This record gives sequence, structure tokens and C-alpha cells, in this order.
Amino acid sequence: MDGPMLAIDRSSGRPLGVQLVEGVRRGILDGALRPGDPVPSTRALASELGVSRSAIVAAYEQLAGEGYLDMRQGAATRVAELPTTFSGGMPATGAAGPGTSRIVAALTSSAPTGAPDAEPGRTEPRISLLPGYPSTARIDARAWRAAWRHAAAREIPSVSPPPFGVDSLRAEIADHLRHARGVTCSPDEVVITAGTNEAVGLIAGALRVLRGAQPIVAVEHPGYPSARRALERRGMLTMPVAVDADGLDLEALRRAPHRPDAVMVTPSHQYPLGGRLPVATRLELLAWAGSTGTLVIEDDYDSEFRHTGPPFPALASLDEAGLTVLVGSFSKVLTPWLRLGYLVLPPAETNPTLRAAVAEVRADEACPVPGVAQEAMAALLAGGTVRRHIAVTRREYAHRRRLVLAALGDLPGAPLSALDGGLHAVIELPDAATSAAVVARLAAEGVAVAPLADYSAVAGDEQPGIVFGYAATTDTQLAEGLERIRAAIIDGGIARPVERTSRPIG
Amino acid sequence: MDGPMLAIDRSSGRPLGVQLVEGVRRGILDGALRPGDPVPSTRALASELGVSRSAIVAAYEQLAGEGYLDMRQGAATRVAELPTTFSGGMPATGAAGPGTSRIVAALTSSAPTGAPDAEPGRTEPRISLLPGYPSTARIDARAWRAAWRHAAAREIPSVSPPPFGVDSLRAEIADHLRHARGVTCSPDEVVITAGTNEAVGLIAGALRVLRGAQPIVAVEHPGYPSARRALERRGMLTMPVAVDADGLDLEALRRAPHRPDAVMVTPSHQYPLGGRLPVATRLELLAWAGSTGTLVIEDDYDSEFRHTGPPFPALASLDEAGLTVLVGSFSKVLTPWLRLGYLVLPPAETNPTLRAAVAEVRADEACPVPGVAQEAMAALLAGGTVRRHIAVTRREYAHRRRLVLAALGDLPGAPLSALDGGLHAVIELPDAATSAAVVARLAAEGVAVAPLADYSAVAGDEQPGIVFGYAATTDTQLAEGLERIRAAIIDGGIARPVERTSRPIG
Repeated sequence: MDGPMLAIDRSSGRPLGVQLVEGVRRGILDGALRPGDPVPSTRALASELGVSRSAIVAAYEQLAGEGYLDMRQGAATRVAELPTTFSGGMPATGAAGPGTSRIVAALTSSAPTGAPDAEPGRTEPRISLLPGYPSTARIDARAWRAAWRHAAAREIPSVSPPPFGVDSLRAEIADHLRHARGVTCSPDEVVITAGTNEAVGLIAGALRVLRGAQPIVAVEHPGYPSARRALERRGMLTMPVAVDADGLDLEALRRAPHRPDAVMVTPSHQYPLGGRLPVATRLELLAWAGSTGTLVIEDDYDSEFRHTGPPFPALASLDEAGLTVLVGSFSKVLTPWLRLGYLVLPPAETNPTLRAAVAEVRADEACPVPGVAQEAMAALLAGGTVRRHIAVTRREYAHRRRLVLAALGDLPGAPLSALDGGLHAVIELPDAATSAAVVARLAAEGVAVAPLADYSAVAGDEQPGIVFGYAATTDTQLAEGLERIRAAIIDGGIARPVERTSRPIG
Repeated sequence: MDGPMLAIDRSSGRPLGVQLVEGVRRGILDGALRPGDPVPSTRALASELGVSRSAIVAAYEQLAGEGYLDMRQGAATRVAELPTTFSGGMPATGAAGPGTSRIVAALTSSAPTGAPDAEPGRTEPRISLLPGYPSTARIDARAWRAAWRHAAAREIPSVSPPPFGVDSLRAEIADHLRHARGVTCSPDEVVITAGTNEAVGLIAGALRVLRGAQPIVAVEHPGYPSARRALERRGMLTMPVAVDADGLDLEALRRAPHRPDAVMVTPSHQYPLGGRLPVATRLELLAWAGSTGTLVIEDDYDSEFRHTGPPFPALASLDEAGLTVLVGSFSKVLTPWLRLGYLVLPPAETNPTLRAAVAEVRADEACPVPGVAQEAMAALLAGGTVRRHIAVTRREYAHRRRLVLAALGDLPGAPLSALDGGLHAVIELPDAATSAAVVARLAAEGVAVAPLADYSAVAGDEQPGIVFGYAATTDTQLAEGLERIRAAIIDGGIARPVERTSRPIG
């Protein structure tokens, strides 16, 4: 590992750690560093490059997490054996321009994305940056197989799973929520679902029992369109309520023309814009819900991944009136391939009628999640696989998030947001036309992103911009995707990179 | 195996084969026959008892199917090793009265039902004869485990399963339907569901897309209450239509006050009354649907099990107008623990709008069945496990059905029906009061059956009677349950057994 490859450009404005990681990665990808090669000790390299040792340690840990380096206790850190999709030298011609662009261009040319894609689905884009999909590459495959084996070895009952789900899984989820989310609940309050939409449908069914034919549910605008339509499909009237930088606009909710029977919110990480409801607003929302008898549906879809600052307490943990239903799933934490989620009802003593209504629906429709899947999930939770995987992916997403910031953080005409948590980002664009042009150009290049307009809950009030996920692709695919997004924005005349010496344009 | 134990009572009116089977079973259970004991050859026993050899062969095969005898090609037939729940001698005092009652009383005293029940669920009755549950004891456990192992060994995708389900499973189901049901369809027409209620909900969602806010769905009265309520929960108006001995009353449908957008029928085995729609009526129904543009939802919930005569062709296979959706599941064929079913859309070219509407719903809500469960089910189908299990359970249910007929077939004041197929039976009772009394007495004795009144789709028009399943219990539990039903009916003064020499009372 010689000097030139790891040259640090202090004038580039890019964090030194990022440059270091990129340099090592590039060296590995273009064959200058080969599997088994030792890398310099952190102490030596820190001294050589004149950076702090902790920056080197962090960079090496990141590279180890990405699979580039092999770090073992008591042994020299070496370049790891790479999976075959990474192999093959990278043409030096790819490494042309400076800074991020250069790295991205270089990685692009070695991306395995031209080959048939292993991802299932119908008409798959070459690089899917559609939001909502996690990284599954590092799920502990052995523990996964063991969990299913364990679940399949049990006696095969001749009945449906219990209406609220298998007890062992309900207990494990209560435990998981205590650790991962700081939510204290009893297993008895946990209801297993086939994911968020099914949970929302179940709550809608309960609302019909409690409130009659056509309950009104306030939904965020913009917000999660599938859940909104799942509500409408079950006969709910949805009432859009604006969101601001903090998430749901409580004043707008208070001033709304109708008093809703329920309000569905994403307080931890507003979907898609990313706002986080301050604790004071959370308490106000709960007070308002208590005084109006409104059910609060807390969609806690990705709060396990918080990149800046500690998570705020869940509404469900602040609620004393028994009016909050927490909705979560393992779609982001593990994979949506599982179709497995949960909701947490208020304690039975605070809201027995809601519980009875949910039980009535489930008595009819049965728990839709296969018993074997429930028992496998319980085993994955009990064995610590989920906890460990969250720890691994937290680091992975934090790293990916840095790639996003590095690639797109310097375009003030197209501001990046929603990056405080989760696994997606938003780029606001000036208007519908440029927004459509960016999406179309990316689609033509085989890169799928979601138009921000798709999240509108009010026809005619679509926000221009794009939403994209940064978790499910490989680093190389992400790098190409980001570079293509960047190029689409710059070539479209929407924004130019900020020069270090100039002020932001936007 | 000596004479007295196998005494055949020709005056009892009970089939000789049944008496033979019961005699051998009793001999094994009370320890007179021990594991490893050879039984007489079929030829010798036929000659000794003066019955046809084929009757003996059938009886032995049944006993082998039940696990009492060990029949191997080229070896003498012997008494099998019994599972521990069967072990322990049976007090001779139990064998008191004549005929069925004696057998049933005898088996009762050895029933393992007093012990903690292995079945999951909340407040489990001692003996659940609730309808709708299959026998799972003889699912090939090795193949089951192998299928899940296979499915869990695949790469873990980071996306939801494809909207219509995993391709391999769709192909296997198309194949299964061709063999098990004589329905020819393309894998492309198969949509994987989380069971019948989810399928019905999906169709309801599609109807909303096609027909607006509140479509009308005609439902059978009496009929399957969960599916009816699943429709209502999704904003459908349901319109009850009477059934007669053949199933749906087509005239009543024609004369109905509203023209429905869809009609949901159980043509193979009307649920719960058991009628089978004649082929001519099927064709008339389809002609009417074609002329009115009505969607036909064919709930084919248990047609794999046909006990008398060949199955009639499915509506879906007679339909040329592209208006029939076949709904099926593996809940009866394997177990509802799987929560796995399917629907079959009409060919895309005959009804593209329906297909598009279903796709629209699924694009939003995703396929709710875990990918691993789909791939495990595909493996179970591909490996022939399902086909073989259907063959095994067909024999098992046919045998159980004979137990039901033997125990309850001679009570004309309480006629038995719905026994031509499937795994449940109906007993009509004179009025609501006797009906409620029978259900209550059985419940007090720990035997759960369903009131026929629960299936009513018209408040105030409840039919008196009970519905019970005969598939999911052990033979001994079933025998006790049947005996208690019989006693409740006789002690309640509802019916007395027919004397061989007298005419039916009813």
C-alpha cells in the first residue's frame, strides 16, 4: 500500500476518513492490493499520512465491515478474499476526475450490474434504488437456516396459528422492543402481522367494529401511499394532514375540517421526508388524542436505524391513555421477504374495547402468518441473530449514508434530506418537470428511484423530487447509482457542485 | 385373533367390514393382540367368518392406514407397534353394550384426551370437533422438514416476494390443480394467497377498483361466515342467496332484488350443508354470469376429498367468459398452520381488466406470504408429498366418515348430511332450542361443535343443527365425540335409533 494510492487531498473538503476508505477500496478493486496482502498498521499509517490513529482505525473497521479487509484479534490486518462479483481488474481509465466523481466512475466500471440480477421480481431495473429495501447480504445464513430447521421440526398442528400469533414470538418481540426501541410492553399486547399493510388493515377492521361503516383516518401528506390505500381499500376515509420539517403538523391536524377516528404517523422518521417529531410535539399529540378519543397509529417502520443522535421515545411508550398502537415489522430489520411484522396494542386495562375489536377481526380472518415462519422468527430473535444483524447493518447503513452524502451533499440546488435515520434519502428538486426528467433519465440508464410525487396524499399537490434507498444494493451499484443521480442533476442544469471557495448557489 | 373378539353380528345392521375393523382395533387396544402378533391371512379369515375376501382386504388396509397393522409386501401382516398414546390395556368393563355404543364406550376409556392437549390455541376444548381442521398426523415429517430446509438454504432476497407469488410455487400449483382437480390453467394465472380470506379480500380490493366504492357480492345462505365478513370488512355489501339440496339456488339468485357484482359459491361441497351443484346448473350459472357480467368466486375449499362419486368439473374449467376466479388453499389438504392458498384468475386474454385490478392491489400490499413458505410449499408439491398425503388422507377421511355414519346414521329425527365429500358433517335438529341444548351439553362435556345457526347470512333465519369436523382428532377422540353427540341427541328426546324392523321415524 504505497503513498500515491492513498494520497490524501486536504483541499478537497472531503473527510479524510472517507478518502482513506475510498483509496484502499480502489486499490483492492483495481488489483493493486491483492487478497492476503497485509496493510500497514494503524499506527504506522497514521504517522505516515499525518492523521489521527482513530481515523485509521475507523476506516479499517469500515473496510472490514464491507468485506474488503480481514481483521482478526492478534493478527495483522490483511486484504480479504473478495467474492467473485468483485473480482477482475478495473481499467485505470475509469479513474479520471477528482474527488467523489473519480471514485464513483472507477467503481462503476467494475460493477457487476450488467450481469443477470439475482434479485427476484418482474421487470427488474439494472440498479434498484427504490426505497424500503434493506441489505440482506450479511444476514447470518447459518442462524437463518437453523431457525427454519428448528421451526420445521416441530409437530405440525392441524389448526391455524393462534389469532394474535404464536406465544413464543410475541414474547420475543416484546423483548426485542424493550432492547431495540425502549418500548416496554407485555407479550400479551403483541399481535403478529404479515407486515405493515396487514397491520393497518387489521386496525381498519377494528375501527369499523368500533366506529361504524366509514371511519376517518388522518394520514401524513406526503406519506406512505400503500398504507393509505390499504386503509381506503378497507372502507376508511383518509384525511391528508401536512407535514413540516419535524414531521406531522399538529396544528394542521387540530385545524382539520373533520375530527378523525384515527391518525397514522411516522414520528421517528417521517416517511418519506424524514422529519422527527420532537418530544414536546409527541406529548401534545397524545394529549390531543386523549381529549378527542382519537386512535394513534404509530408506524415505527425504520427506527432501529438512527444515524444522528439518540432515538426519541416511541409514542407508545409516552401514551398513558391507551390510544396508541405501535406498528412495526422485520422488513427493514431483516427482509420484506419474510412478510412478518407486529403491532402492539395498548395495555388491555387501558383500552379493552380496541383489543376486543382486534380479536373479533382476527377470530374471523385468523393470523395470516404461517406458524413455521412465526417460530423461525422467534428462534432468530431468541438466538440474538436479529440483535447482531441490526448492529452490523447499522454500521453498514451509516457507511452507505456517508457515500450518499459524499456523492450528493454538495448540490444545494437539489438538497438532500431524510438522512438522519433509516435507509432512504430524499432529493428535493425545483419543479415537476425537472423531477420527471431526472426520474426518466435514470430509468433509461437502468437506475430506479421513486418520484417524491408518488407519496402525495393530495392530488395536484405533488412535491418535486426523488426518493431513493441506499441499503439494498452493493456498494458498487450504489456508487454507480449515486453518480448517475449526480450527473442527471448537474447535466439537467438543476444544480452545480458547491466550490469550496464559493457560497452555496441555492 | 380368536373367534369371540371378531364375532360378526349380522343382525346389527352395521356393515360387516366396519365390525371387523372395530373388532381388530378393540383387540389391539385392550391388549388381546400385541405388537408383532401375526393376524390371520385374508383368505383364512374370510373363510372362517364367511365374508368375502375383498371385505377382509379392505378392513386390513384400513387398519394398516390407521397404524394398527403392519402390512408389508411379501411378509405376514402383523400388529404394529403403537404410539405411546395408544398404549396401556383397556379395562374389559368398558366393553358393555352392543354395536357402536359398545365400541365407542370402550375406546373412550382409553382415549388420551384427558391429558394436556398438544394442540395449540387458547381455551381448547377437550375434544374439538370444530369443522375445517384436517388430520396432520401423517404428513410426511421428513419431507416437510426437507422442504423447509431447502427453502431456507436459498439466498435471502431484500425484496418482498413477487406480487403474485414465487414462480416455482405458481407452476407447481397449476400442476397440482391439473392432477387433483382437473383444472387446466397457466402458472401465470395463479396468485399465491395467505388463505381463503386473504384471497377473498384481494378479490374485494379488485372489485373496488373495477366497480367503485361499494360492490355487491352475493353469498350463500347459510354459508362460510368468515369469508362473508371478510368481504364486508372490505366495504362490500353482501347479498344472501338461499341454498337448496344441490347448493346455490340459481333461481333465487336470478330473482334477487339487486344484481350483484360478484357471487361467491362453494359448488363442489356447499359449505356447510354439503350440496353439490349439478353440471347443468353450473353451466346455467356461468351463462347467467356471462350475460350479466357478474364475477363468480368459486370457493373450492375441500374438493380434493370426494367420498361418493367422481368430482364435478370446477366452474373455472367450464367458464369460457373469463368470469370465474377459483379460490383454493392448502388448509384442508395439509394444514391451516401454513396459511397458504391461491386463486386462479381467468386467462389474461379473456379478462385483462380483472387481472390488472388484482395486480394493482398487490402492487400496493405485496404478496403477504413469506418467500420461504412459498418455496417450501413448492418443494412439497414438486416432491409429491402433497399428492401422497392427499391419497393417505382420502382413505383416512373415508374411514372416519364411515365412523360418523356408523355412530349417527340411524337417527332419522336428526338427519346427517354433507358427507359426500370433505371433512365435516351436518346434523339437522328440530329447532333452535334443542340445537342450543345439544351444543351446550356437548360443550359442558368438553366436546366442541359449531352451531349451524352460526352459518346464517340472514339474521333471524338460523337453521337448527350442528356442524362438526371428523378429520383432526384421533380415532379415539372422534369415537368419544360421536358417542357424546349421539347421547345428547337421544337423551334430548330428539331422535331414537331406527330399529331394523321399523320404518324411519322422521
